[in-house]
Amino acid sequence: MALGFGTGDGESTRATLERSVLIDGNVVRILDRRSFPHRVEWVEAADAAAVATAIRDMVTQSSGPYFATAAAMYLTARDAPADNLEDLRRTVSAAGELLVAARPTNNHPAQAVGFVLDRAASADSVSAYREAAMAAALATCANYESSADKLAEHAARLLDDGQTILTHCWMDSYLVAMVRAGLRQGKRWRWIATETRPYLQGARFTAHTLVEMSQDVTLITDGMAAAAMAPGSNVGEVHALITAADRVSMDGSLANKVGTLQHALAAHAYGIPFYGLCHRPDAATATGSDIVVENRDPREVFYALTTRVASALVRQAWYPAFDVTPPEFITSIVTDRGAFKPKNIADYFGGTDE
Amino acid sequence: MALGFGTGDGESTRATLERSVLIDGNVVRILDRRSFPHRVEWVEAADAAAVATAIRDMVTQSSGPYFATAAAMYLTARDAPADNLEDLRRTVSAAGELLVAARPTNNHPAQAVGFVLDRAASADSVSAYREAAMAAALATCANYESSADKLAEHAARLLDDGQTILTHCWMDSYLVAMVRAGLRQGKRWRWIATETRPYLQGARFTAHTLVEMSQDVTLITDGMAAAAMAPGSNVGEVHALITAADRVSMDGSLANKVGTLQHALAAHAYGIPFYGLCHRPDAATATGSDIVVENRDPREVFYALTTRVASALVRQAWYPAFDVTPPEFITSIVTDRGAFKPKNIADYFGGTDE
Repeated sequence: MALGFGTGDGESTRATLERSVLIDGNVVRILDRRSFPHRVEWVEAADAAAVATAIRDMVTQSSGPYFATAAAMYLTARDAPADNLEDLRRTVSAAGELLVAARPTNNHPAQAVGFVLDRAASADSVSAYREAAMAAALATCANYESSADKLAEHAARLLDDGQTILTHCWMDSYLVAMVRAGLRQGKRWRWIATETRPYLQGARFTAHTLVEMSQDVTLITDGMAAAAMAPGSNVGEVHALITAADRVSMDGSLANKVGTLQHALAAHAYGIPFYGLCHRPDAATATGSDIVVENRDPREVFYALTTRVASALVRQAWYPAFDVTPPEFITSIVTDRGAFKPKNIADYFGGTDE
Repeated sequence: MALGFGTGDGESTRATLERSVLIDGNVVRILDRRSFPHRVEWVEAADAAAVATAIRDMVTQSSGPYFATAAAMYLTARDAPADNLEDLRRTVSAAGELLVAARPTNNHPAQAVGFVLDRAASADSVSAYREAAMAAALATCANYESSADKLAEHAARLLDDGQTILTHCWMDSYLVAMVRAGLRQGKRWRWIATETRPYLQGARFTAHTLVEMSQDVTLITDGMAAAAMAPGSNVGEVHALITAADRVSMDGSLANKVGTLQHALAAHAYGIPFYGLCHRPDAATATGSDIVVENRDPREVFYALTTRVASALVRQAWYPAFDVTPPEFITSIVTDRGAFKPKNIADYFGGTDE
């Protein structure tokens, strides 16, 4: 059984990354994104502890930990030996704790675990608990998918057929859902994808997935986005900059993969709209300056995949994982409840401003 | 005998790339920049035809073809068998033609060849011609160096001691000359260098050279420059963006390695000065839109050095070698005659506006 974010309607638009977590007999199999697509390898995890280790080791990223966590909860609820309900409840809760602790700064696993435990809480027998938890694990995946689909419908409405979209990094479920929303709305777009150094999510995941989905995609390096957006560029007119957002604060700022800010500045300079996609804003984060940007190991800058690209003499680098784009450089934040002007993002919790 | 752009005053600030062309006995030896600094290998060229082939094959780039051409002219003038003056003149001119034709869009070799032929034109014997051409070949290298030194003196005056400079790609002679001009003016700077995909000039040449010259340099990817320049960045305040320019048009536009434009847009958004360094503007190019931007083989985007980094499915890419930054995003063009506001660049041919 495959868990993922996509509806996978038809082989011609199937993306490998949308089904990167499988429940296969007694194990969870997780597609190894550290080497994908250069090698298509799966990591087998026999229980929740092994899934937690795989998440910690970055076997999967983006929405991957969410689905891997759901799969681990499913497997535990189904297979854990239990003499009585209390036994089972303890085992499933302990599994959830391991999964939540795997990557403390990513709250995806916590959401999936919380959903499963809540739904199973009122079960009054071992078999009822198993059934409720298993159903909840599948339901949380379906909810994720349906929320991405709603967001993608709103985003697709902002675009016309035949337009060119420049995107940065890997929009994950939003990318796949947008292509499908376009098909439903009779719209087909051309994509320009940045390679997204140093981890190369654009060159490895975005461009790959768009080709798998039979889309027209042109790869550029991260330094070429402004040149592509400048008037008269010979790559053709760019109609929109679209990226996902890791977090949106309540002042309408947006944190996303480093590089997003400079693409947003260029789009603003050339009057090209920038749409940031995010399920929902984070009510707990007041402003962009409240977003703490994680610094990753700077040595990653010296390498492309496993090849040392920088001079061996060089010892200092800087690798902020994200940057924060302030609201004045964002046209709209697109959520599962519609598109909001950044200054109106608090309306998400009341309605939409479409 | 080494030909190059640097004064090489003292081992502690010697840069390998400033002496990347040698006349060694009967051959020209050229440092192979295709693999430098991962491998330090020299290509031997026995005559002008072999030097032209090395230039065409991209063994050397930036100012390298200038010095390699001067070396080939020197060697030809010294060693070419000749029964009489007319014989020698024909042989040296033919060598010059081969060198000029090696890379038709780069006019560096043409300048060096023209200088040598002009200086030798009035010689009235074989030995006088040999001597004049050899002296001219050395003089043209010395002129190049002294012009870069003057430019660097002007650029260094725009900066205070202790400031941080963000640079893109490889400023070649200007970089080395600026470090030395700083030392003369009692100024030491911290450098942030972009890696400059796809060819990685920043990661391979700039960062390497700055470490060789005992400078403080931090490497970033091309997507991180705006994040570095944004207020409150934890890499520290950036005081100036400085790049070389491949060409400056008479409206004060600047063509340089692709990526320069987006760094200039970010610097402008954050009130950070952008100084573009260029020996002199090109009187034959009226405006930025008259600069034809060369598109290079897009497959280079798929690779980092010889490693395929993009998904094997991806077939389309875009690789403009340069982009053009319009004058409104440039603070000053710094030349060997001083710094000019872009709108006053025509004054170069009359004086300076400093």
